[in-house]
Amino acid sequence: MRDHGGNIDAAQARFGGTDWIDLSTGINRVPYPLPPIPPEGWTALPTTRAQNALIRTARAAWGCDAPMLALAGAQAAIQTIPRLALGQARVLAPTYNEHAASLRAAGWQVAEVAKLDDLAGADMAVVVNPNNPDGQAHDPLRLAALLPKVGRLVVDESFADPVPHLSMLPVAGQKGLLVLRSFGKFYGLAGVRLGFVAGHEGDIAALSAMAGPWPVSGAAIAIGQAALRDGAWAKATTARLANDCARADALALRAGWTVAGGAHLFRLYHTPDAEAAQARLARQRIWSRIFPWHPNWLRLGLPGAEPEWDRLQTALA
Amino acid sequence: MRDHGGNIDAAQARFGGTDWIDLSTGINRVPYPLPPIPPEGWTALPTTRAQNALIRTARAAWGCDAPMLALAGAQAAIQTIPRLALGQARVLAPTYNEHAASLRAAGWQVAEVAKLDDLAGADMAVVVNPNNPDGQAHDPLRLAALLPKVGRLVVDESFADPVPHLSMLPVAGQKGLLVLRSFGKFYGLAGVRLGFVAGHEGDIAALSAMAGPWPVSGAAIAIGQAALRDGAWAKATTARLANDCARADALALRAGWTVAGGAHLFRLYHTPDAEAAQARLARQRIWSRIFPWHPNWLRLGLPGAEPEWDRLQTALA
Repeated sequence: MRDHGGNIDAAQARFGGTDWIDLSTGINRVPYPLPPIPPEGWTALPTTRAQNALIRTARAAWGCDAPMLALAGAQAAIQTIPRLALGQARVLAPTYNEHAASLRAAGWQVAEVAKLDDLAGADMAVVVNPNNPDGQAHDPLRLAALLPKVGRLVVDESFADPVPHLSMLPVAGQKGLLVLRSFGKFYGLAGVRLGFVAGHEGDIAALSAMAGPWPVSGAAIAIGQAALRDGAWAKATTARLANDCARADALALRAGWTVAGGAHLFRLYHTPDAEAAQARLARQRIWSRIFPWHPNWLRLGLPGAEPEWDRLQTALA
Repeated sequence: MRDHGGNIDAAQARFGGTDWIDLSTGINRVPYPLPPIPPEGWTALPTTRAQNALIRTARAAWGCDAPMLALAGAQAAIQTIPRLALGQARVLAPTYNEHAASLRAAGWQVAEVAKLDDLAGADMAVVVNPNNPDGQAHDPLRLAALLPKVGRLVVDESFADPVPHLSMLPVAGQKGLLVLRSFGKFYGLAGVRLGFVAGHEGDIAALSAMAGPWPVSGAAIAIGQAALRDGAWAKATTARLANDCARADALALRAGWTVAGGAHLFRLYHTPDAEAAQARLARQRIWSRIFPWHPNWLRLGLPGAEPEWDRLQTALA
């Protein structure tokens, strides 16, 4: 199994204690308040009508009019997209490790490249925007210019909710372009398992056939509907996250770390020794993410409630 | 899109009205009472530990010690299993239409056969036990005898909860055998999207890799844990369903229909004209299932609360 954030059970097993603050992911710790879920959301198979209504809401929220499919998390899209074709894929790296792994498992030849322009010529090119873990942002005009030079361009916008100007969703629907969205990260509800993929009609129909008739739960539909309609919450959350990034960075700088990157939902710090830095946070039962391929980087999600900030401050004092 | 039960939105569009009783599926209308869902079930990625605990509970409930995987409904297993191999598949028919369709979509050659023995020689053989829609039950000893004669034997036990003596789960783990379970039907919680597949270690590992790290929601894990531990509820529900089958059959007989088959969660009636019979029920806003390939068959789920029985009685009087 590939390593991921969110493995809080592994942290508990290694360091003990139960009241951990999981900052090993980029999941918002101030979740969208759960709306009431109608009884039929639990008991009945989700209707086509309910699924279509969720898609309409998502499209409106993101200024998108392309064909779109709801799936059980952006991860489900990452698992499914490689089955659309076969060939040579290139992934702009370093990034979320499931893209390359899922493509390889499906039979693709995969190369990781360091520059956006090096994606040209690939049968499938993958860009995470903004990128995880370094937060690098890519201008949608540059991505649009890349599109005719690749077979398919997958743009994973799992962390793009707070930066709508980066999104390719307003131009989704073009042949070859596939745009992914996570619901759980920005809305802080990763357990709901909801994500979206928008793209060209033929690709979305093929992905829908692979996903089957009921890929998301009734609860996911009800929650997604309420949350994606709530523009005021999204706006306030974006503002809070921007402020919290600065607050976390200030604590990290005092600990002698430097900011290596980040997006609204996570920060990437350069530390003298990532393993030591992770252990330092773990003593306050704060779980963070380090990377087997980089000895200094530590990725940290943002605390939610004030007691969580107090613990982070203690850990970094 | 293939036709299914559960398309209550289509019934509403065609006949009007909103207070429909959906008996077009085999979903229990007296659902398992929802347990409290812990906040982290919504907010956090499901941990490996939580997923493993659910599997342990399911195994204990079904007397199974084979490798098992939780997925977003038995449907997700039906979508995924065809990707384990390619070749000639045979499906014991008539049955749930997604099996043959999903195999064909994945590139299998598929033949539908009418007798269990005709499955011998297939690279993949599919049996639904008890079968949907006719309720035909297959002796597990006969299925075990078939196993060495096929590449893989898929036994879909989506309706087997009330008939544990039919289950192959106690002998799952043998090479080539894959056993599917639905959670939503017997527990009346189809919107939760939870199902299971048990089988040989290598197949389950391959299916797990295809499903990705978080295929079921935190709510599904919490609800499945509580329900599958509750043997008393399962026992009482099985007894109630047996009684309700007799009650529904008596109403159908009075309407001039005959019993063509059925299992604990649905009845199959032979009617003079299935379309007319469906319309007759629809006038009481009861939705039923008919089949494009049989002019007389109507499948009917069982009403739940007494007002639902009253409506059925009125429709069939």
